[in-house]
Amino acid sequence: MCDAIEIELVVCTTCRMSADGTGAQQPLRDGARLSAALSARGIPHVRQECLSACRRGCVVVLRGPGRWTYLQGELDPDRDLDALETMTAAYRAAPEGFLPWRERPESLRRNIIARIPPMEPVK
Amino acid sequence: MCDAIEIELVVCTTCRMSADGTGAQQPLRDGARLSAALSARGIPHVRQECLSACRRGCVVVLRGPGRWTYLQGELDPDRDLDALETMTAAYRAAPEGFLPWRERPESLRRNIIARIPPMEPVK
Repeated sequence: MCDAIEIELVVCTTCRMSADGTGAQQPLRDGARLSAALSARGIPHVRQECLSACRRGCVVVLRGPGRWTYLQGELDPDRDLDALETMTAAYRAAPEGFLPWRERPESLRRNIIARIPPMEPVK
Repeated sequence: MCDAIEIELVVCTTCRMSADGTGAQQPLRDGARLSAALSARGIPHVRQECLSACRRGCVVVLRGPGRWTYLQGELDPDRDLDALETMTAAYRAAPEGFLPWRERPESLRRNIIARIPPMEPVK
């Protein structure tokens, strides 16, 4: 992180894809795998331990100053990388980061956990 | 909202307590009832239409510059006002708004949807 953040993709590194414990024997948590896969593509992101959204792992946050915050869940590091990259680019390009439903990648439309409006007053 | 925000309690005014439509005939959405009940107690909050967390209404956000963001769900305007007021006060008092599990009101511990770390680097 630095002082002049434009946008940030935050990745929970402790997520498991299902919270039922079936992944407990994996050497690497699914969230850590997602982070590694993003790094392999050169996609900047912030690693964060536990976003407390364990029911819907893998979980990421898109945010930035003066922007909407999107919390997305149920991401699969093996399947959703293209969609996540597309959504991150759309978020970066969107005024105040606002992404209407139709402008989100189709595979991620049902994965939304929440959206939070910008803290600053919207001009 | 103003330019010098310390903390903000954001209340989704379109939430229903259950997303199964059983509340569809109510004259006022549960989220709007929650907002009205907070106003009646003189608790400042920001009203927001749809935080896209409909599965777990009523939903609120606690946030502030340089602070953790907490997203809480499954709030009942008839039952959870005291707990929400207590949690808001604890959040205001906590350095960087960080609320360890044990310091949250017991009735709200299981209601967490997500927590998001501050955007600014933690000192």
